Amino acid sequence: MDSGAGRGGRERLVVIGGDAAGMSAASQARRMRDADALEIVAFERGHFTSYSACGIPYWVGGDVTDRDRLIARTPEEHRARGIDLRIRTEVTEIDVAGRRVRARDVDSGAASWTPYDKLVVATGARPIRPEMPGADAPGVHGVQTLDDGQALLDTLARTGGGADGGRRGGGPSGRAVVVGAGYIGVEMAEALINRGYAVTVVNRGREPMATLDPDMGRLVHRAMEGLGITMVNDAEVTGIRTGDDGRVRAVATADAEFPADVVVLGIGVRPETELARAAGLPLGAHGGLLTDLSMRVRGHADIWAGGDCVEVLDLVSGQERHIALGTHANKHGQVIGTNAGGGYATFPGVVGTAVSKVCDLEIARTGLREKDARRAGLQFETVTVESTSRAGYYPGASPMTVKMLAERRTGRLLGVQIVGREGAAKRVDVAAVALTAGMTVERMTSLDLGYAPPFSPVWDPVLVAARKAVAAVRSVTPSR
Amino acid sequence: MDSGAGRGGRERLVVIGGDAAGMSAASQARRMRDADALEIVAFERGHFTSYSACGIPYWVGGDVTDRDRLIARTPEEHRARGIDLRIRTEVTEIDVAGRRVRARDVDSGAASWTPYDKLVVATGARPIRPEMPGADAPGVHGVQTLDDGQALLDTLARTGGGADGGRRGGGPSGRAVVVGAGYIGVEMAEALINRGYAVTVVNRGREPMATLDPDMGRLVHRAMEGLGITMVNDAEVTGIRTGDDGRVRAVATADAEFPADVVVLGIGVRPETELARAAGLPLGAHGGLLTDLSMRVRGHADIWAGGDCVEVLDLVSGQERHIALGTHANKHGQVIGTNAGGGYATFPGVVGTAVSKVCDLEIARTGLREKDARRAGLQFETVTVESTSRAGYYPGASPMTVKMLAERRTGRLLGVQIVGREGAAKRVDVAAVALTAGMTVERMTSLDLGYAPPFSPVWDPVLVAARKAVAAVRSVTPSR
Repeated sequence: MDSGAGRGGRERLVVIGGDAAGMSAASQARRMRDADALEIVAFERGHFTSYSACGIPYWVGGDVTDRDRLIARTPEEHRARGIDLRIRTEVTEIDVAGRRVRARDVDSGAASWTPYDKLVVATGARPIRPEMPGADAPGVHGVQTLDDGQALLDTLARTGGGADGGRRGGGPSGRAVVVGAGYIGVEMAEALINRGYAVTVVNRGREPMATLDPDMGRLVHRAMEGLGITMVNDAEVTGIRTGDDGRVRAVATADAEFPADVVVLGIGVRPETELARAAGLPLGAHGGLLTDLSMRVRGHADIWAGGDCVEVLDLVSGQERHIALGTHANKHGQVIGTNAGGGYATFPGVVGTAVSKVCDLEIARTGLREKDARRAGLQFETVTVESTSRAGYYPGASPMTVKMLAERRTGRLLGVQIVGREGAAKRVDVAAVALTAGMTVERMTSLDLGYAPPFSPVWDPVLVAARKAVAAVRSVTPSR
Repeated sequence: MDSGAGRGGRERLVVIGGDAAGMSAASQARRMRDADALEIVAFERGHFTSYSACGIPYWVGGDVTDRDRLIARTPEEHRARGIDLRIRTEVTEIDVAGRRVRARDVDSGAASWTPYDKLVVATGARPIRPEMPGADAPGVHGVQTLDDGQALLDTLARTGGGADGGRRGGGPSGRAVVVGAGYIGVEMAEALINRGYAVTVVNRGREPMATLDPDMGRLVHRAMEGLGITMVNDAEVTGIRTGDDGRVRAVATADAEFPADVVVLGIGVRPETELARAAGLPLGAHGGLLTDLSMRVRGHADIWAGGDCVEVLDLVSGQERHIALGTHANKHGQVIGTNAGGGYATFPGVVGTAVSKVCDLEIARTGLREKDARRAGLQFETVTVESTSRAGYYPGASPMTVKMLAERRTGRLLGVQIVGREGAAKRVDVAAVALTAGMTVERMTSLDLGYAPPFSPVWDPVLVAARKAVAAVRSVTPSR
């Protein structure tokens, strides 16, 4: 192996991106090999490292009062562990043949090349912004980075929500429109409700939470309306209107105009892979980097990639997906750092688990939706059951709806979706493990899940669904 | 098949025991075959059917205000579904060769024989009572049946706890001693605290919750003391003292005497199998009936058994255990009813999952303890980690301790124990499914569990433990 990049015979590992995947990889590589054997240089174009982007809605909403609590490890802490971390430094080019990256100081503009022996690409994802006039107007916010979150909080302070706005009582102090009704959209709806805003969610789909089947999304729709959120579905944003001061004034669709003091964009993210594309690294159908099971970029022995910029194998469908989620990024980083540090680890893939909440409504999914299963060439039965989080007679037992998909003939579990209140979301983990193990719904009916009246009915809701799915698979009916 | 028992050519299924296993079996058999094809006769010696014995502590504690809420299905409801249910009728003999059971009306004493084609033995368990003077004195209570629960509530009303005693404030209104610190013991301690009693738990073991390893039981010990419960460990009850009125006055150990207005016995249960033993049916080392995977009594083609009177296969140790738990009883009943009704189902075994709580302390376990693993001939590594129920920065994140056992060399998961607060107990389900699937701790580290800040840290506590277990298994150290 060429060790020309490191000084004094050391190898040099270069990491592009200072958030979850990149810094987990750097930290784990450092645990594997000390500074005498491995130099680690990490580039981050922003101000912050290793922070929880998933926590931003709760900071904006006021549940988390201090931005710094979202930061797991500061640049100084990384440096103290022997990682040469350079913030406000953007990598602008990867020279794969020359084994070097070009980086530019964001503030001074000064640029230089840094050679590497091993490279980690952890460039994350960028939010999709609608291409229309007004999309960049003051008062229109993404919530991808801590800087985004701070900018949004500044707007809230200006438009009447303020740090304690709604929490101190009184009527709505401002009008907010959230564009998009996926995880970020519904979490931001909660945050803005908590800040005392009158919230309208404008959603392109038939129902909110397109990661669920529409029948389950419908339950979310109703519950959000019950929370006082105005839900506008089947609505494409056609323009963002600004006032004389240049600030956002309203969000327009084909049919209506929704006044807005603040607009939050939650219409999804794309892998941030322009750098990788320019360097000729392999990208998949969703625009993410393609890796092997050791998170090595396909065809490149000394380049790894992980986090929001890669595609991952969906173990249920057998196809690649793009999922931007901190928990995957951390796992990727762990695997990459182990491998880059000379050890061995793999990331086998995902089953597509996600949990979220809007106020006291909990939403969870894992595995395939109906349309995913069809796209994967699978035939299936679906069942939906109503159950409760605790024994029906125990105080606080709350209703939940569980939908389950099982493959025809084999009875293999294909997916689960849950909408309910307290105790609903994390029940999906049982299905996530069962999917990983390739269990049939019949095998699931005898799973030895924890039972006591404060925690579960005597048949856990997931098992109730499994029982009904067994019956559906057994019944000989023509498939859809 | 001999169909002589049923009238008009119908087969007759006789069920002994009207609680979870028996009535689930009867109900499922009825779903499989209607009354024209299958006559179903069920005998229950008590007043009640299909009730949640697990709910009794919460009824006694006042969380459940109405006894009838613990009854899933009344005798009348069973009869309306075509089950010939005879309450207050005790089966006193099984004549296996003659395919008949002898039953006695508890009130009148009248007895008669009932022939069967198929038989279900679901006689449950009986609480262990210490054999010493005073053990049957007024004020000493078991909590196995609804009748037990009512008797205990009557004592509480008499001794100052009363229906709303402690809940309405004021100082302790009476002194309660709980003998035993297993699930029933700790749940009854909570119930009596809720009723305003000063509670002492007298426990034979080194720490409470002997279903956990002592190091985890120690956490329960400390937490219970923090709740104001007096914990007396390493203490064998040597006598129960009564006053001049014949009622209980104190519980004595070798070292001390603990004044008591009420005593609750929670020292475990044994399979109720005298009837089966007398009939020559096969019993295991723990005194429970032995069945095959279809819950058929070994060696008897037309007799099934399930619920608290049977032994079950522990899938992790490969040995039989006795576990009295409603959720298993319901599953057994479902399997038995399907098979007795002419269908096919199996109960593959258990992994030993159990969850419980004492006030806001949650306790969970699945798989093997250290001593179970040793007894099964397994060598293993153990790790213990501290984590939180939610992202550390999210309000309400509560600490939890997770202990994990993994097999040496293979890294196969052997067991998990969790002690914590809200959100701790049901996390054990992930380990229960992983145990069922025979997963290694290394495979577990990449499990796709639900992540969002209100629900989990970015590494779920179970995954944190799995990561540490991987490292322990990898390190080459002499085994204990």
